[in-house]
Amino acid sequence: MAKDKRVEQITDMDEDFAQWFTDVVKKAGLIDYSGTKGFFIVRPYAYALWENIQSVLDARFKELGHENVSMPLLIPESLLQKEKDHVEGFAPEVAWVTHGGSEELSERLCIRPTSETLFCDHWSNVLESWRDLPMLYNQWCSVLRWEKTTRPFLRHREFMWQEGHTLHETAQEAEAETQQMLNVYAELCEDYLAMPVIKGRKTEKEKFAGAVATYTIECMMHDKKALQGGTSHYFGDGFARAFDIQFSDRSNNLSYPHQTSWGLSTRTIGGLIMTHGDNNGLNLPPRIAPTQIIVIPIAAHKEGVLDKAEELVMRLKKAGIRVKSDTSDQSPGWKFAEYEMKGVPLRIEIGPKDIEKGQCMAVMRFSGEKVPVDLSQLEDKASELLDVIQKSLYQRAKDNLTSNTRSAKTLSEVKAIIEGQGGLVNTMWCGSLECEMKMKEDAGVTSRCIPFEQERVGDVCAICEKPSDTMVVWGVAY
Amino acid sequence: MAKDKRVEQITDMDEDFAQWFTDVVKKAGLIDYSGTKGFFIVRPYAYALWENIQSVLDARFKELGHENVSMPLLIPESLLQKEKDHVEGFAPEVAWVTHGGSEELSERLCIRPTSETLFCDHWSNVLESWRDLPMLYNQWCSVLRWEKTTRPFLRHREFMWQEGHTLHETAQEAEAETQQMLNVYAELCEDYLAMPVIKGRKTEKEKFAGAVATYTIECMMHDKKALQGGTSHYFGDGFARAFDIQFSDRSNNLSYPHQTSWGLSTRTIGGLIMTHGDNNGLNLPPRIAPTQIIVIPIAAHKEGVLDKAEELVMRLKKAGIRVKSDTSDQSPGWKFAEYEMKGVPLRIEIGPKDIEKGQCMAVMRFSGEKVPVDLSQLEDKASELLDVIQKSLYQRAKDNLTSNTRSAKTLSEVKAIIEGQGGLVNTMWCGSLECEMKMKEDAGVTSRCIPFEQERVGDVCAICEKPSDTMVVWGVAY
Repeated sequence: MAKDKRVEQITDMDEDFAQWFTDVVKKAGLIDYSGTKGFFIVRPYAYALWENIQSVLDARFKELGHENVSMPLLIPESLLQKEKDHVEGFAPEVAWVTHGGSEELSERLCIRPTSETLFCDHWSNVLESWRDLPMLYNQWCSVLRWEKTTRPFLRHREFMWQEGHTLHETAQEAEAETQQMLNVYAELCEDYLAMPVIKGRKTEKEKFAGAVATYTIECMMHDKKALQGGTSHYFGDGFARAFDIQFSDRSNNLSYPHQTSWGLSTRTIGGLIMTHGDNNGLNLPPRIAPTQIIVIPIAAHKEGVLDKAEELVMRLKKAGIRVKSDTSDQSPGWKFAEYEMKGVPLRIEIGPKDIEKGQCMAVMRFSGEKVPVDLSQLEDKASELLDVIQKSLYQRAKDNLTSNTRSAKTLSEVKAIIEGQGGLVNTMWCGSLECEMKMKEDAGVTSRCIPFEQERVGDVCAICEKPSDTMVVWGVAY
Repeated sequence: MAKDKRVEQITDMDEDFAQWFTDVVKKAGLIDYSGTKGFFIVRPYAYALWENIQSVLDARFKELGHENVSMPLLIPESLLQKEKDHVEGFAPEVAWVTHGGSEELSERLCIRPTSETLFCDHWSNVLESWRDLPMLYNQWCSVLRWEKTTRPFLRHREFMWQEGHTLHETAQEAEAETQQMLNVYAELCEDYLAMPVIKGRKTEKEKFAGAVATYTIECMMHDKKALQGGTSHYFGDGFARAFDIQFSDRSNNLSYPHQTSWGLSTRTIGGLIMTHGDNNGLNLPPRIAPTQIIVIPIAAHKEGVLDKAEELVMRLKKAGIRVKSDTSDQSPGWKFAEYEMKGVPLRIEIGPKDIEKGQCMAVMRFSGEKVPVDLSQLEDKASELLDVIQKSLYQRAKDNLTSNTRSAKTLSEVKAIIEGQGGLVNTMWCGSLECEMKMKEDAGVTSRCIPFEQERVGDVCAICEKPSDTMVVWGVAY
């Protein structure tokens, strides 16, 4: 019965992955389309996922000394234009406010696409001495980019994110901050979202508008395409010079501070869905799941069943597990399918026969495996199974990444791999924009990053055949 | 020394309360002015206050079954116009987006001044049956209203708030929700912010655009003016009819649901400052203060002092107290003034003589009272003093409210009170808009609310002298 239900509900992921994705976000109650074109409604179940991501990151940010602030939503056009590369990168895709109430504004204001210019403007007012440094700020907010085509989670005109912005006395400190925050993102992805990552530096072509260097974590989706999980930028003192941010240094001279910014958005939820989901719907790693265990009474009308189900919920709750029961009048089959669709990692079934035997049945969402659990060991066994699920999801994603990352020596090899198996391809690269463009044109892939973990997969650039010491990873990306 | 410092820094509150307020928000590091006119930067110390407010409210909302969601920032003009009263109330003060990227939009979009229309549009898509009800949603976000004049916290063009939006099967349930959420706001104000409130219903003139009834909590500031602390609205089924939101009810007929919304904003922080602050700066109730205790080493260069200060911090932290130390090279006098300005409720001084005697000195911010504390009793005594401070601040504010709320029988009595002592004035009122307008014109006060706790302060309307059973409270409001 659960089987039939699913088939009705969502497209087979192997037939049409894009449609499968859209079906899942709708059917699992994550997203609704809104009357504002290109804008999505983040429904409670998706928002709860975002809150769990926020709570992991916010705690880490604060441990590392960062403070939250709130900057204006709107940026005057003249302010956006202060840093040349930055405005070139963002001006074409911002939304413009031209009227306030019934009056036309003397200067139009854009809705922030990111807030570097606002932080810089603030710092130019408040920074005085080296004693004020570092300034370690973060902002939780939404930003707008006027995308032509949109998709749930992956490309919204408005999306929620956090943007960290920091100022430092020295280039070295700022570089260290950039790396540190990239590692925080990597920990979130690997330890909570069960998404293995490749850490690396973006090429000049792919870096953030205005940055000296952009670092990234790249993840692989179930369809072997890449998704950027979060980025961390080192700005040097470029913005500081453009915005005239100076401080009296330890020798009492005026100096320009060094700057970073780093962001992670609700796109990560798109990645989570496409990494672990299957034809039954979502598949959530326990450490991030809003509900870790769903308790479902079987033959709920029989005496004692509902009470027992409630007792299990109370016991698991007390053990610190996020648990719910569904005692509605829907059939067990309907409920199984519903919570599989929602990706609840573990289902516990409890019926009259189980109660007689002093046990319940635990069913792992990711494998369908059924494990009878002695009620006397409920809490320990449940925690153990949640751990198993967390590790298994990570391992499965890691296997997908490893087995679909290949090396190639020539552009035509890359092309053959992408057209054949897909996935990521490592090659040596001379570092030229020309070769990067040619790879895109001929093989349809972009550079994902220059991985920190370099291998020597050849001696020459796969495109121009000049001697090369740098390995880059290529792929088709969301 | 601390004394001199203060005098330099802020205006005397009894000379110029408005300037005192502006000085405090700047000097305590709460707010910075931004390059976007009418928009303010909420700096880390103010944001930490907001986070504490959020954490109290968010936990209560969730306990009561509410879920967080995120709705679009922008509203198409046609959607805003669906409910007639609502659009009349808000259209004159919204900001309009007319261009996305380089293209002019075919329909202009306003930045949300509030999100009733967006929630209604969503509900008209997702609501099906009585089984889906109630829908209990909340959104943490910022909204925009194009105010002509702005002041930190009190009137921003953009302000942060939460907006709850709920749908119910029956009018009775929706009315109960409206009252319940007003009580949640009252608890926040009284139990955490130490701000006593008057609960009541707004008059027809003062209610929210599109509401059947608006309930409010009204607070009294140090200067005896009123500040609205939060509002809760009952909509009946007016929006549901305008947006065609229907559900199959228990008899399988199509019915319109009943709706509420309720909001509380960063304005509350303005209220907190103006309720408890004094000529030394902020004065924060311990239950909401980002830092509850500041530990200041005296003669920090002497052996053992810094270690001892750090030991006290660790002990207090372990006891669950939000505590920091200031071990910088500034003088103790500078530090005293600094943390008084920041309103940290309790200061602990520890120097060589204290260590010798096995004690420290606790100084209460609100009274300046010094209490020697035996180090063996540090945690208990600190908690006790924080409780005393919390209660004392509440009591002082309560006394201010009580002693400055008067009754009057005639308009000229009201006028005399307002021109003399100020504060709030209770009178009987016939309920007519005409009398309400006349009161405003002649005595310069607006109706704050019709208090739930009614008294019979006369037999006839103070304005028209018609027989009247309703007491209303009047005042000058922020």
